Amino acid sequence: MGEAQVSLKHLFRVFTKPEHKDSKLAQIEEHLSDNILDFLSQHVVTKKTSLEEVEQDFADAVVPESPEFVSTHAENLLEKLVAHSVNTYSPTFIGHMTSALPYFHLSLAKLLVGLNQNLVKIETSKAFTPLERQVLGMMHNLVYEQDEPFYTQYLHSARHALGAFCSGGTVANITALWVARNKCLGPDGQFAGVARAGLASAYRHYGINNLGVLCSKRGHYSLSKAVDVLGIGRDNLVTLPCPEQVLDPELALKKGREYQEQGNRLLSIIGIGGTTETGHVDPLDELADVAKELGCWFHVDAAWGGATLFSKSYRGILKGIERADSVTIDAHKQMYVPMGAGMALFKNPEDANAVRHHAQYILREGSKDLGATTLEGSRNGMAMMVYSSLHIIGRRGYELLINQSIEKAKKYAAMIDALPDFELVTAPTLSILTYRVCPAKIQQCLSALPQKDAKKLNSQVDRLVVNVQKLQREAGKSFVSRTRLESPEYGAYPITVFRVVLANPLTNTRDLKAILEEQHAIAARNLVWQQLMANSQCEALHQA
Amino acid sequence: MGEAQVSLKHLFRVFTKPEHKDSKLAQIEEHLSDNILDFLSQHVVTKKTSLEEVEQDFADAVVPESPEFVSTHAENLLEKLVAHSVNTYSPTFIGHMTSALPYFHLSLAKLLVGLNQNLVKIETSKAFTPLERQVLGMMHNLVYEQDEPFYTQYLHSARHALGAFCSGGTVANITALWVARNKCLGPDGQFAGVARAGLASAYRHYGINNLGVLCSKRGHYSLSKAVDVLGIGRDNLVTLPCPEQVLDPELALKKGREYQEQGNRLLSIIGIGGTTETGHVDPLDELADVAKELGCWFHVDAAWGGATLFSKSYRGILKGIERADSVTIDAHKQMYVPMGAGMALFKNPEDANAVRHHAQYILREGSKDLGATTLEGSRNGMAMMVYSSLHIIGRRGYELLINQSIEKAKKYAAMIDALPDFELVTAPTLSILTYRVCPAKIQQCLSALPQKDAKKLNSQVDRLVVNVQKLQREAGKSFVSRTRLESPEYGAYPITVFRVVLANPLTNTRDLKAILEEQHAIAARNLVWQQLMANSQCEALHQA
Repeated sequence: MGEAQVSLKHLFRVFTKPEHKDSKLAQIEEHLSDNILDFLSQHVVTKKTSLEEVEQDFADAVVPESPEFVSTHAENLLEKLVAHSVNTYSPTFIGHMTSALPYFHLSLAKLLVGLNQNLVKIETSKAFTPLERQVLGMMHNLVYEQDEPFYTQYLHSARHALGAFCSGGTVANITALWVARNKCLGPDGQFAGVARAGLASAYRHYGINNLGVLCSKRGHYSLSKAVDVLGIGRDNLVTLPCPEQVLDPELALKKGREYQEQGNRLLSIIGIGGTTETGHVDPLDELADVAKELGCWFHVDAAWGGATLFSKSYRGILKGIERADSVTIDAHKQMYVPMGAGMALFKNPEDANAVRHHAQYILREGSKDLGATTLEGSRNGMAMMVYSSLHIIGRRGYELLINQSIEKAKKYAAMIDALPDFELVTAPTLSILTYRVCPAKIQQCLSALPQKDAKKLNSQVDRLVVNVQKLQREAGKSFVSRTRLESPEYGAYPITVFRVVLANPLTNTRDLKAILEEQHAIAARNLVWQQLMANSQCEALHQA
Repeated sequence: MGEAQVSLKHLFRVFTKPEHKDSKLAQIEEHLSDNILDFLSQHVVTKKTSLEEVEQDFADAVVPESPEFVSTHAENLLEKLVAHSVNTYSPTFIGHMTSALPYFHLSLAKLLVGLNQNLVKIETSKAFTPLERQVLGMMHNLVYEQDEPFYTQYLHSARHALGAFCSGGTVANITALWVARNKCLGPDGQFAGVARAGLASAYRHYGINNLGVLCSKRGHYSLSKAVDVLGIGRDNLVTLPCPEQVLDPELALKKGREYQEQGNRLLSIIGIGGTTETGHVDPLDELADVAKELGCWFHVDAAWGGATLFSKSYRGILKGIERADSVTIDAHKQMYVPMGAGMALFKNPEDANAVRHHAQYILREGSKDLGATTLEGSRNGMAMMVYSSLHIIGRRGYELLINQSIEKAKKYAAMIDALPDFELVTAPTLSILTYRVCPAKIQQCLSALPQKDAKKLNSQVDRLVVNVQKLQREAGKSFVSRTRLESPEYGAYPITVFRVVLANPLTNTRDLKAILEEQHAIAARNLVWQQLMANSQCEALHQA
């Protein structure tokens, strides 16, 4: 039953002979190539399947003893894996940052695996190394706009790096703060530097209690992971409240000063160039001033929003990013590259040397091996996907894509505003917005109630929002995500909201209208809706 | 000139309409699918091209303003990128750990990108999450061989993790030591733990000067990167000499005790399950005893050698690995999976909780989101490649592949031994070996010379080896790598050696013979060879 022969001869065939053109795997490929939307809508099942049911298909922890025929396996993949995957191409799946991708990536994926270069060193990646350096240079240029001689000097310099390519924004943020940390507590006459001596010795040498990083409460969770990994400690990630969704520069300055006055050193201020939750952009230019004033590193996490720089109409939103010491941008977000393409960019091409390392057999002194300054070691050639996208889409192409996403988000916000039973919670700066469903009557009531009562009522609305989000997801036609955040309207406590990312170019106004209608229908049928409508306080207010 | 239209309509086509079947990109795909060896040998140029020349093709740091036609771009990729890539499929490229891959990965690569799941959370990866957990479970089982109830309990438990999937061995090693560090300096009644309070506070609280990690000098460079990133400091990676290429347990115990007696705490001993440079395996079982004796964590870096566990004949070499607290294995090495598939496995499924983290919008308390205990955030579905390989190749298939690699290495070692002008430096434990070219006469002379003179002469042999390695690489027919290491024969100083990794199943004895012949021919023509042969000390010895 699908068991293949166990012989070296058979195995060699697996390495040297392609599957037959009529094989199941070849059919899958052809369907993907011809019409990926059709492939996904045909194979991804939309009916509700519980996670526990799916887990049944992946329950055996024993390595299969005997080989399985490729075609048998391909059938299994379709039934067990593809069927229960998430259809990221669907125009009504607007809950996360993954979306439809340009077609050419399907072919490039095959080329990437066929070449299987390892970018840690030139010996296993010859042309891919200069390619990756060029991609980093282009992205550096997009952010920092240095002149041609600058790039001529540094793009392919063995002693410099304009950035570090990595698997994603988390590693990019860790890399940036690693560089910052090693520079901040670097070697001097008496001290070998934190990279060699470690953090505790560095604190002793520099006479500091703690090292701290400051950002708003909307900072991505990767930042607290970064300070944990780097030994700084999560308690030293000072996260400031941001009722307006952005970091207040005055507050940042004040809190930064206070932190320093307690015998600590401030390592970095982090400005966010598009928060994951609401898409807001911190006032980067003013935060650059604050970082200068406090004498610390300035990092901008633009994993999501960085691609806005392609748009002449909207790049102004990120003004000040060019003053950052380091910037994180993910190409697998708004650059429509498959998962696995993050970048940390460094304003100063010398900075990456703070983490430079060597080995005997590779990364030798003076080599141009990329692995000498990256956190990861062996890496694949994902930079090719970014390279190709930059060429095939071009700056002007990206500009159109970015513009239409932002404009679509604004349109969606207007649609929400026009519906009495919905409340826009955060308007879009980029292409992310949050809102909730809440009966019009309850909205009026909430604004009239004393805060304590409003809070209680809001927690009931939270339940409604959670229910609607889950039921809509389970119905399988569309997907929005949810989060909890403080809104200016209801003061300090968080409320639950729908979160929408309008990244998919295939999403149109009709899709958005359908999503809102579905949400309203699910909500109106929900028990919590009835409970809300029967709220006695609101009834009383209504009658008054 | 290849400039495409800048319009949303054109861009939508890029997302929704595949390239024509006769297009350049479709041709590339077809060629790859039909005969990848032929594709590579046709498009990868073997003639010498300097890196500087290749860099000319990747010199512009400006994002292209206008879109390029996909077909024009595909031509460019072939000419600039593919032409100057490394042919990792070539059976005579035996210098690194990448090799030919099974055909089915080409198709799976396309499926992976088409699905574009993000494994950080279930919402964007539904079936991929249980699949990845199953893969981790299977690999855990391969190492730790727990019983069925164990896996039934932990495989899909929201509060446990059998491992962390990651982009490669470096991140796996960092993850393992991160977990170890956070457990070692964890919270107690008075202390919040290192994850929250940071490393300096932890040292103060626990009254230690430094935290240290101990391994042999053959430890992979990622380990020094790990202790740097984690704030421990590179000076606290205690690397012990290993003239026999493996860590001496008695020395480890002695040095570990000494380190502890200096007011330090030993975080971990690291055993290597196949060193990158020579393929040697530390005495893992005895090192497990040492770690127990010293009361520290025991990590095994089996990034390269872990797959040996598939072979009943050879898994005994890794005896003791099942006693490790954590193990690193790379599937993109001896499991023939494309680049980007590393794993850290944890003996105790509770341990990963030492790095658990949450966020409001994902990774919520109680969720099964994989991102809650991984260093990376957004990640692609590479686990599918491992899953498919485990099924299509199976344990018995891997066993055959592993066995033939090791046996091929032994055969190669015998061939070297039989050639008078070659010296085997380290015999293969797994499928890696090192050797050098050195005229027979000089070999005899070296063994007769006093150490100081031998050292001088050896540095001349080093030059010969470097020259031959470079010239052979430039000739383009074959590739071996080189490194420097201490050999038992010549005492404490390092010599330069060829390093060979016999991973490619397509490499046969004829290929190996040709490589040796080419090396001999290049060497005999080299000026350094003549200089060696004219060495007056050797002449005198010869005549005596």
